[in-house]
Formats: sequence, C-alpha cells, structure tokens
Amino acid sequence: MTNNKGLLIVVSGPSGAGKGTICKALLEKHDDLFISVSATTRQPRAGEVDGVNYHFITKEDFIKRVEQKDFLEYAEVYGNYYGTPKSRVEEMIDSGKNVILEIDIQGALKVKENFKEGVFIFILPPSMEELKQRIIKRGSETPESLMRRFKSAYQEINYISKYNYAVVNDVVDVAVSKVEGIITAEKCRVDRIKDTILDSKEGLIHEQLYD
Amino acid sequence: MTNNKGLLIVVSGPSGAGKGTICKALLEKHDDLFISVSATTRQPRAGEVDGVNYHFITKEDFIKRVEQKDFLEYAEVYGNYYGTPKSRVEEMIDSGKNVILEIDIQGALKVKENFKEGVFIFILPPSMEELKQRIIKRGSETPESLMRRFKSAYQEINYISKYNYAVVNDVVDVAVSKVEGIITAEKCRVDRIKDTILDSKEGLIHEQLYD
Repeated sequence: MTNNKGLLIVVSGPSGAGKGTICKALLEKHDDLFISVSATTRQPRAGEVDGVNYHFITKEDFIKRVEQKDFLEYAEVYGNYYGTPKSRVEEMIDSGKNVILEIDIQGALKVKENFKEGVFIFILPPSMEELKQRIIKRGSETPESLMRRFKSAYQEINYISKYNYAVVNDVVDVAVSKVEGIITAEKCRVDRIKDTILDSKEGLIHEQLYD
Repeated sequence: MTNNKGLLIVVSGPSGAGKGTICKALLEKHDDLFISVSATTRQPRAGEVDGVNYHFITKEDFIKRVEQKDFLEYAEVYGNYYGTPKSRVEEMIDSGKNVILEIDIQGALKVKENFKEGVFIFILPPSMEELKQRIIKRGSETPESLMRRFKSAYQEINYISKYNYAVVNDVVDVAVSKVEGIITAEKCRVDRIKDTILDSKEGLIHEQLYD
C-alpha cells in the first residue's frame, strides 16, 4: 500500500553548510537512493567520467534542451552551462527510485517552480561562527572573497521559508538520520499515497468483505 | 536551532489496525514521549490507577470542563464520559514534551478541529483480510457484531484523507520505525522552526559577521 513513485529529495543550503558530506553519506548507506547527475557544457577534467561526474554535452545540445524545457534548472557559470536534466529525473522517479539532488539555493528555488512535489531540505550550519570557520578551512580565499561568501550564506538563510525542512548539520550522523527520517515520513504522506490506498481498498471489498 | 515546543502525535485508525501495539512500543523505546491520559467519569476497575490509566473525575467536573472547552475531544459511551484534557496536553507540549494520543477516528477528527498543528497518523492494517482475522482473534464477537465492526473499519478508511500520514502495520517494528521517522521529520519542518532559526540568525549577525 505504498505509492510506487520515487521522491525527488533536494538537499540544499549555503556553501559551507555541509550538504555534500550529507549526500555522500546517504548515498553510501542506501542502495535505493540515486544522485541526479548534472549536464554541463564544460570540458571533462582529468579523471572525470561522463555520466558519473557529469553528462558532458555540447553547447548546441544544451541550448536545444533548454528550448525543450528539459532542465529542472540551469545556470551559466564562467561561460559554461550546468543543468539538472528533467527527463532523467522524472524517469528515475517514475520507476520508483528516490533521487537526491544536491544544489545551491538559487538552483533549488528554480527546481521548486518546476517540481513542486519535491522534498526541499535546507541544510544549516550549527552556527554562523562555525560556518565562517568551515569557509576559512576550505582555504584559497582572500579576506574579501571570504567575507563575500559568508555574507551571501548569511543572506541565503532567509530563503529557508521556501523549503519544507531544515536540518542543522552539527554532527553529520545526526543530520543524516534526520534526512533519513524525512524520507521515511514523506513516503508515508497521505497526499502521496491516498489514491493507492483507496484503490487497493476498493479492490478488496468484494473479495474479502463478504467471504 | 530547534523549536522548543513538543508535538502532539495523534495515532489513530480503525479497530484492529494495531494502534495500541505501536503506541506501546514507541513509549517503551522513547523517554521523551508521553501518552495523553484521558479523563473519564466511569468508576475505576480493579488495578486501575488514577492519573495512569485515566484521570477519574466526577460527572459534575467533567461537564464543567466541557463548558470551559477544556477537552480536545470527548464522547459519551454507555452513560460514561471520556475526554482528552486540553490544558494538560498543552502544558506538556509547551514544556517541550512530545505527546502521543491513541484515539479512534471520530475522536481524531474532533482533535483536529481543536489542534490543527497536531501530527495525524492513520494506522492501516496490511489488508482487509488481515483486519478481519485480527478482529476475529480478539474473540467474544457474534458473527453479526464482527461484520458490523469490519464494515465500520472498512468505511472509516475513507477518512484517511483528513490525516497527514498513513502507516501500514504489517510488521510492528517497521511500522514503529516509520512513526519514528515521521516524528523526526515533523521536528525538522520549516513551518515549525522557521521563527527560531531566523531569530537565532539575527542574534548572531553583529557578534559574528564582523568580528
């Protein structure tokens, strides 16, 4: 009595909140979770595998797919395009797979416009101080760019109200188990499974109510 | 960064679905879960303890509290009144306790009118056939009363759309872990914790953004 459709689980948040770590842990633990692989027009770097790290496609292909509305979201960064392929995500979900999409806040808000039934999870740093330390630890930042990143993360937290859930990433294992709980709960939401339940109930009445 | 308020978790469903078994298992596993004890005007039976099995109160008291709107729901059964005390539940929730209310479907629908922020979970039997077997196993039923109970359970499933979640009680441990997931997820709902997060963020800006 569960809906056979999978979920789109959008794991998002400011840079430095630790969404990558959480997604990696989830994917390692759960065989029934799949990551959405982005399409990009940039050249593969050494060691990058087509279909694993990215779907590497030409700019012409990318633009054609934009016109066909085949991206849940896309963006241009330093002259290269990056996008989340809509048809691939939908195919996986229709076949019952749960798909994780790790994405920044701007991207997540665009995905929400195109895929309202997604589960939108905002990953928060335990504190702004901790966020600053994490951004510093990543290194290779000038004081100015560090401050810019930090301020941007700070402002982005205001978008939390567009999300369904917020998970504080203090201890990674705890944050991961919270996301697991969210996935479990979403699978039980009446909105998602009501029709399946009522259908299966109808199918049972004549067989079992009167025998 | 979590809201300090507890949750009201309403575990409901047709008789024979196994909501009692699930609640018992949850309460045994979790120290931070508390059951809502009903008030009643009926006489205590041998071994029943006031405040544990029921709050035993007089009919006058009960009626006074009905007038004061101090019940989330109440009902009369064979001349005795039974009700869920509103102030007690609210005190527990305000002090951060998660309160479980095990209740039939009619009761749950009344609670929903008075406590919309509750988490309403519908416990389903794995199949109508299994439900019938469970009702039979409880014994002391005439074929007519058995059929009446079964038909009523069958019809009650239509109320599922008034609930937030549906959990199929096939294997008890699995059903319990689903309810645990639902509680975890509800604690992370942005609707519930947004204000706390944005408040704590505001508190941090001057201390940490510029130091």
